[in-house]
Amino acid sequence: MLKIDMHTHILPRDWPDLHERYGYGEWIQLRHHEAGKAEMHSGGTVFRVIDENCWDADARLRDMEKTNVDTQVICTIPVLFSYWAEPKDALDFSKILNDDIAATANNHPGRFIGLGTVPMHDTDMAISELERCVNDLGFPGIQIGSNINERNLDDDAFFPVFEAAQDLNACVFVHPWKMLGQNRTKDHWLTWLVGMPAETALAICSLAMGGVLERLPNLRVGFAHGGGSFPLTVDRIVHGFEARPDLCQTRTSTPPSEMLKRIYVDSALHGEESLRYVISRFGADHVYLGSDYPFPLGEIPPGSIIEGMQDLDESMKQRLLAGTALEFMGMTEADLGLPNQTQATNA
Amino acid sequence: MLKIDMHTHILPRDWPDLHERYGYGEWIQLRHHEAGKAEMHSGGTVFRVIDENCWDADARLRDMEKTNVDTQVICTIPVLFSYWAEPKDALDFSKILNDDIAATANNHPGRFIGLGTVPMHDTDMAISELERCVNDLGFPGIQIGSNINERNLDDDAFFPVFEAAQDLNACVFVHPWKMLGQNRTKDHWLTWLVGMPAETALAICSLAMGGVLERLPNLRVGFAHGGGSFPLTVDRIVHGFEARPDLCQTRTSTPPSEMLKRIYVDSALHGEESLRYVISRFGADHVYLGSDYPFPLGEIPPGSIIEGMQDLDESMKQRLLAGTALEFMGMTEADLGLPNQTQATNA
Repeated sequence: MLKIDMHTHILPRDWPDLHERYGYGEWIQLRHHEAGKAEMHSGGTVFRVIDENCWDADARLRDMEKTNVDTQVICTIPVLFSYWAEPKDALDFSKILNDDIAATANNHPGRFIGLGTVPMHDTDMAISELERCVNDLGFPGIQIGSNINERNLDDDAFFPVFEAAQDLNACVFVHPWKMLGQNRTKDHWLTWLVGMPAETALAICSLAMGGVLERLPNLRVGFAHGGGSFPLTVDRIVHGFEARPDLCQTRTSTPPSEMLKRIYVDSALHGEESLRYVISRFGADHVYLGSDYPFPLGEIPPGSIIEGMQDLDESMKQRLLAGTALEFMGMTEADLGLPNQTQATNA
Repeated sequence: MLKIDMHTHILPRDWPDLHERYGYGEWIQLRHHEAGKAEMHSGGTVFRVIDENCWDADARLRDMEKTNVDTQVICTIPVLFSYWAEPKDALDFSKILNDDIAATANNHPGRFIGLGTVPMHDTDMAISELERCVNDLGFPGIQIGSNINERNLDDDAFFPVFEAAQDLNACVFVHPWKMLGQNRTKDHWLTWLVGMPAETALAICSLAMGGVLERLPNLRVGFAHGGGSFPLTVDRIVHGFEARPDLCQTRTSTPPSEMLKRIYVDSALHGEESLRYVISRFGADHVYLGSDYPFPLGEIPPGSIIEGMQDLDESMKQRLLAGTALEFMGMTEADLGLPNQTQATNA
């Protein structure tokens, strides 16, 4: 059964010293301090240690063999979005990231598919890099943050980027980052465990209630972690939308529940019951396998919860494991061009 | 079928001019500007208009007749918690609120049950007022905010209050307020629609991962709005708890999923599918009818979603509509003392 992991992160093995290149800022750099590991540091502080499967295609392919993943959709780690930087420098660094991802995808056709990074804080530059990603690098779309320098996604500045994505038939994967309310979530990793799902719901509600999705009916937008808290709170959100039109219906009168038929979410729920609920709300044609590989909050092995669900038939599993991801990216299985010896045939 | 609405709000019709009484602060006052309505104002600004069913027992009883609610559990509106004030003044105002609720409950035995307000920001005063609520006013418990001046509920300062509640066999109803991340949720009423469910998940995680629930095994704690985003994200939370014990298991190694058997949540989900999911995760013995009456985000009529669920048998409905609330409050149906002519008999 074909298996596409729609939510994985990657970064280059090396990149130039950015503080030196741009002359300011606490840019993130890697230090390969021991075999198979690297420290991510910023302004002299190590804030995370990563393994070689973060940058090394061969290490990833070995993991993919073990877990029967045919294809990984690869995009950067949100901490590298660089929306804080001068737009021209964020664009320059985005190109470094995108060219690296394109090289990985080109070296392993069908095994890796890239999503681009664009400097969302400069509309024109974001569109020009989006165009380059789609037209020159062959990416099916881009990954963006759930907010851009604390501005929500329905800010007018971002609309032209979404419009360009629609025009280019490019998908947009929204990843939570820079979570709201961090002053309250310092303990127990709650920025990741409570803040991230809220951040994703905030992004979905902004695009829905801000009218962006309605104005761009052919735009395909996907969200991480099963849509965060949105799927469980959607009925409350709709109830509020109807109870207080003065507050909620300023940009659109289409209830947010309509977006369940419209947006895509990944399967990274970490439990059968929660995943089953999310599938029941969105439909299998709007849920795709996404594991958050290779990070500790990811699903290991990717897709194992879908595969283990007794109540899903084989065609439903195939949809969740690959079909929906292909539709989201505007691709067919043939586009992958995988040789017959892989498992790339429908069951 | 007996029907207890475990989550309703009430305030006194009148109270003293608090700025005059305490000599400072923008205390909330009511102005009865037209028949059946009042403006809530603070520092000269009207911030909300409420109807007489916010303060008038007879108006509430009329609504209860129409919707077959036998009993309302009544507690204040979180905006009156007054944790910002001098503790002695917050205590004084809490007594005004609590005495008013006690009068309403005493005037209509069995129809109204009170939950107290206590000045959580002063541990000793909070405990003394909790004791008065339980021992003198006959309340089964108290309502507290999901945070106390931005401090989460596992802050050591609050532990003695929870411990006293356990010792008194008092229930604690945690209501979301002062939501995290409000700078990001100004549009589309998202402070209420995204912030509140996140705030509740934050409160649950704080009490669970902060070890409070483990240290107080007999403490009964309930949460509003179906537990907010917690029930859908609990598998992610558990996965994080296991993946990063260094961050998550500093106070307890009991996984947060254990709390599904422990805490209580109300039914204010606003949809059958979301409510069914929450019942499946907590069990009907940990979900009670709670409508958020009389506010626009409430369920109208209270309990109608439970009553309409075809897949619940009568005994399950009775549990959700009354049985769980009675257990949460440490009461039996006989304690209500309702006359036979009400609908207070089991079906």
